[in-house]
Amino acid sequence: MEKTDVLVIGGSAAGIVTAVTGKNNYPDKDFLVIRKENQVIVPCGIPYVFGSLDSTEKNVIPDAGLTKAGVDLKIGEVVFIDQDQKVCKTDDGTEISFEKLVFAAGSTPLVPKWLKGSELKNVFIIPKNKVYLTEMIIKLTDCKKIVTVGGGFIGVEMSDELNKKGKDVTLVEILPNILGLAFDKELAVKAEQILQDRGVNIKTGIGVKEILGDKKVSSVLLNNSEKLEADAVVLSMGYRPNVSLAEKSGLSITEKGFIAVDEYMRTANPDIFAVGDCAEKRDFITRKHSGVMLASTACAEARVAGMNLYKLSTLKTLSGTIAIFSTAIGDTGFGAAGLTEEAAKKESFDVVTGVFEGMNRHPGTLPCTHKQVVKLIVARESGVVLGGEVMGGLCVGELTNLIGFVIQNRMSINSILTAQIGTHPLLTGPPTAYPLIKAAEVIAKNL
Amino acid sequence: MEKTDVLVIGGSAAGIVTAVTGKNNYPDKDFLVIRKENQVIVPCGIPYVFGSLDSTEKNVIPDAGLTKAGVDLKIGEVVFIDQDQKVCKTDDGTEISFEKLVFAAGSTPLVPKWLKGSELKNVFIIPKNKVYLTEMIIKLTDCKKIVTVGGGFIGVEMSDELNKKGKDVTLVEILPNILGLAFDKELAVKAEQILQDRGVNIKTGIGVKEILGDKKVSSVLLNNSEKLEADAVVLSMGYRPNVSLAEKSGLSITEKGFIAVDEYMRTANPDIFAVGDCAEKRDFITRKHSGVMLASTACAEARVAGMNLYKLSTLKTLSGTIAIFSTAIGDTGFGAAGLTEEAAKKESFDVVTGVFEGMNRHPGTLPCTHKQVVKLIVARESGVVLGGEVMGGLCVGELTNLIGFVIQNRMSINSILTAQIGTHPLLTGPPTAYPLIKAAEVIAKNL
Repeated sequence: MEKTDVLVIGGSAAGIVTAVTGKNNYPDKDFLVIRKENQVIVPCGIPYVFGSLDSTEKNVIPDAGLTKAGVDLKIGEVVFIDQDQKVCKTDDGTEISFEKLVFAAGSTPLVPKWLKGSELKNVFIIPKNKVYLTEMIIKLTDCKKIVTVGGGFIGVEMSDELNKKGKDVTLVEILPNILGLAFDKELAVKAEQILQDRGVNIKTGIGVKEILGDKKVSSVLLNNSEKLEADAVVLSMGYRPNVSLAEKSGLSITEKGFIAVDEYMRTANPDIFAVGDCAEKRDFITRKHSGVMLASTACAEARVAGMNLYKLSTLKTLSGTIAIFSTAIGDTGFGAAGLTEEAAKKESFDVVTGVFEGMNRHPGTLPCTHKQVVKLIVARESGVVLGGEVMGGLCVGELTNLIGFVIQNRMSINSILTAQIGTHPLLTGPPTAYPLIKAAEVIAKNL
Repeated sequence: MEKTDVLVIGGSAAGIVTAVTGKNNYPDKDFLVIRKENQVIVPCGIPYVFGSLDSTEKNVIPDAGLTKAGVDLKIGEVVFIDQDQKVCKTDDGTEISFEKLVFAAGSTPLVPKWLKGSELKNVFIIPKNKVYLTEMIIKLTDCKKIVTVGGGFIGVEMSDELNKKGKDVTLVEILPNILGLAFDKELAVKAEQILQDRGVNIKTGIGVKEILGDKKVSSVLLNNSEKLEADAVVLSMGYRPNVSLAEKSGLSITEKGFIAVDEYMRTANPDIFAVGDCAEKRDFITRKHSGVMLASTACAEARVAGMNLYKLSTLKTLSGTIAIFSTAIGDTGFGAAGLTEEAAKKESFDVVTGVFEGMNRHPGTLPCTHKQVVKLIVARESGVVLGGEVMGGLCVGELTNLIGFVIQNRMSINSILTAQIGTHPLLTGPPTAYPLIKAAEVIAKNL
C-alpha cells in the first residue's frame, strides 16, 4: 500500500493551489495530487485556444509548479474511498492511505439531454479536457457557420474568438441579455453592442428548440421557429459539479449537487475537504446556496483549505462566494463583483445605485484613452457596498478586484468617498473624477 | 461688496474638487472659485505635454466641470483676508464676503537659490503654469542636449518624454537610485534599467554643483567634477506649498511650511479650510509630518473638506496621507503605496517583506504578457500591511490602488491570503499565482 499525508483528488487550479498552499503551510507533510489527465489546461484560457492562442499546447498548466513546491503527482483515477480506514483505491488497483483527503474534482459541462439533436456530430461542449479541445479545434477548421448556445462568459468569449478566426458566428441566449447574470441591463447592452460590432450575430430572449441534422448538425431550430444554418454548434450552458465519487464515498451532497462543506472547506468528516467547482458555495451576501463556479473562487477556497488542513484558523476562512468576473471584448474590459442591482432587489435589499461614466486615462486627449463606466450597488440602510460593475479599458480586471476587496471587507460607501488613490495620466482616470469615487458620490447624494 | 457662501482660493485639482463636492453636498450654498490663471492644466499631465501630448492645450482642465456643477468662477488673486469680518480683497480691489473659506493655493517648484547658475537662460523649472510651459516647449525645440535634475516621478517622466522627442537627455539624481523615495532598491533599479534602455543617460548618487554658461546655460558641473554639456537644464527638485497669503492672514503654518489643518481639513478657524499641496499632511502610518504632494491626495483632502464644510462627519475624515504613486516607463508600469521597506525600518517598524514575480496575463503565452512583480511590507506583530510596490504592465495603477485600500483600511495579510479575486486571461495574473496573494504567502511563511 502506498502512503501519503495529504491526498488531493484533481489537478486543475483548485487541486494545485490546495497542494501548494498546504505544502507551504505544513512542509513536513507529504502531499500527493492524483489526476486523470496527462496534462491540465488553464480553465479560463480555454476560449482563447480557439483564437488568440491557436493551440491547446500554449494553454497547459506546467507541472513544474507542483514539483517545485515538493508535491508528488500521480496520473490515475480514484475509484473508491474508505473513510474509516483512510484509504483510497485507484483504477489500476493501487491503494493509497492518507491522513487528509481533499476533493478538487472540478465540474463537467452540462449536456442538455432534453435538447433533441445534441448528440449529433459537430455539436460540441467545452470540457476542461485538452484531448477533446485539440480535436475540436481540428474539427472546427472547416466549419464556417457556427451557432454558440449560451451567452455567459464562456459563450461570449468563444463567440468572439471564433469570430476572430473568420467564422460566421451566431450566439443564442435565452435570457434578455448576454452576460445577464453578471451585469445589469445598462452594461450588458453595451457588451452586446460591442460584440455585435465585431461581427457576432446575437439572438437574445430566444431558446433553442432542437438541433437538426442527419448524423451531422445542419441547422438549429429556435423557439420562435427561426432556423439557423450551422456547420457546428457549441453548447456552453453551464457546468455541473463532479461529485459521484464523493457521493459514493458517503459524503453529504447539497440540494444543488455540490459536496457540503463549512467555512474551512471541511466536509462533515474533518479529515476530508472539498474545494473548487465540486464544493458547496454560498453567496457572500445573500447567504443562499450559489452555483457560481470560477477558477479564481476555486483558488480562494483552495488556499483556505490548504491553510486549515492540520490547524484551524478563524482568520483564514471563506465567508461565502463573491462572484467576481471579468472579461474583455476587443479592447473593452468588463468586470463585475457581488450582486447586480436586479439580483439585490430580487433578494429584497433596499438599494441605492450610482453610475458614473468617465475615462480610464487623463487628460482624455492621450492616446488609447477609453471610456470607463462604474456602477455601484449599495444597501441604503448601512451604505455597505453589495456589488459593482465596471466597463472600460483592460485595467478593469484590477479595478473589479478592488471592488471585490471592498465587498469582502464589508466596507461602506464612506470608505470610497474618503479613499486615497493614486492616479496617473497613462494608467488611471483623473484624480478629480476617478469613476469609482464619482459613482459613490452619486449614491451619497441619494442615500 | 460681492458675496458668496463658500470661497475657494485656487482652481487646480484640489480647488475644483472641493467646490464640486461642496456644491453636491450643500446645493443651497453659493460656491465661488477664484484663481489667478486663465486656464488650469492637469498637473500630472505636465510631463506629457513635452512628448505624448505635444501641446499644453490638450492638457487643460475644462471649466465645464465647475460650471456644470453650479460653481461660479472668477479670475483674480486674493491679496488680503479679514478673518473676523469674513471678507477678502482681490488684486483689482473687489471685496468678497464669505461664510466659509478654502485655501487650495497649491505649490510652486523649488528654485534652488544656492545653486549657482540656476538663473541662466534655458534653465527651467516645472510650474503648474500653462503660459510658462507653452513657452518652455518652444524654447526646448532647438535644444538637443538636456540635463534633468531630480529623479523623482516628474523628473523621470520628463526625461522619458524629452527622450521620446529625440533629445539627448541625462538625468542627475543625488540619491542612490531614481524614484528612491517611493520604491525600495530592487524595484528602483529595474525602473532605472528600463529608462536607460530607452535611451536616457542616468547619473545617480551625484549632486549638481553649478550650472555653467554665459547668460545661457552651456554645461552642468557635477559634484564629482564631471561636466555635462547642456543646451537646457530642467530642474525638478521638489515643490513648496504656497502659504504666504494664509500666513499673512494669521493662519498657523507648520514647521514644514504647510497650512496647519485637522482631520476635517479645517484650520484653527473652523470656517477656514485648507486642502491640497498647501495643506498640512501627516503620514498615515508614521503619523509624522509629511511633505508628499500628490494630485490624488489633494483630491481626497478636497472631498473631505467639501463634505465637512457645514456639517462634520467622523466617518468622512482624512486620517493621514498614504503616498500612492504610479507611473509608466514605456509599457512597464510602476506603482507604490504606503511605506517602503527602507522607510519602515528607519521608523523602527519590525517588518516582514515578501516579493513575488509573476505575470499580468495568463497563460504567459498570450500576446502582451508582462512580468508583474509585487512586494509587500507588513508589520510583524500584527500582520498589518504598511506598504506595497508593484511593477508590471499598465494595470499596475489600479492594482496599486487596491493595495492603497488595504493600507487605508488597516487590513492584515489575512485579508489578502483569503481574498477572493476575479481573474481573466487577458486582464490579470492567473488565479493560481496572482502576484499580490503570492507575495502575501511569502510573508505568511516568514511571520
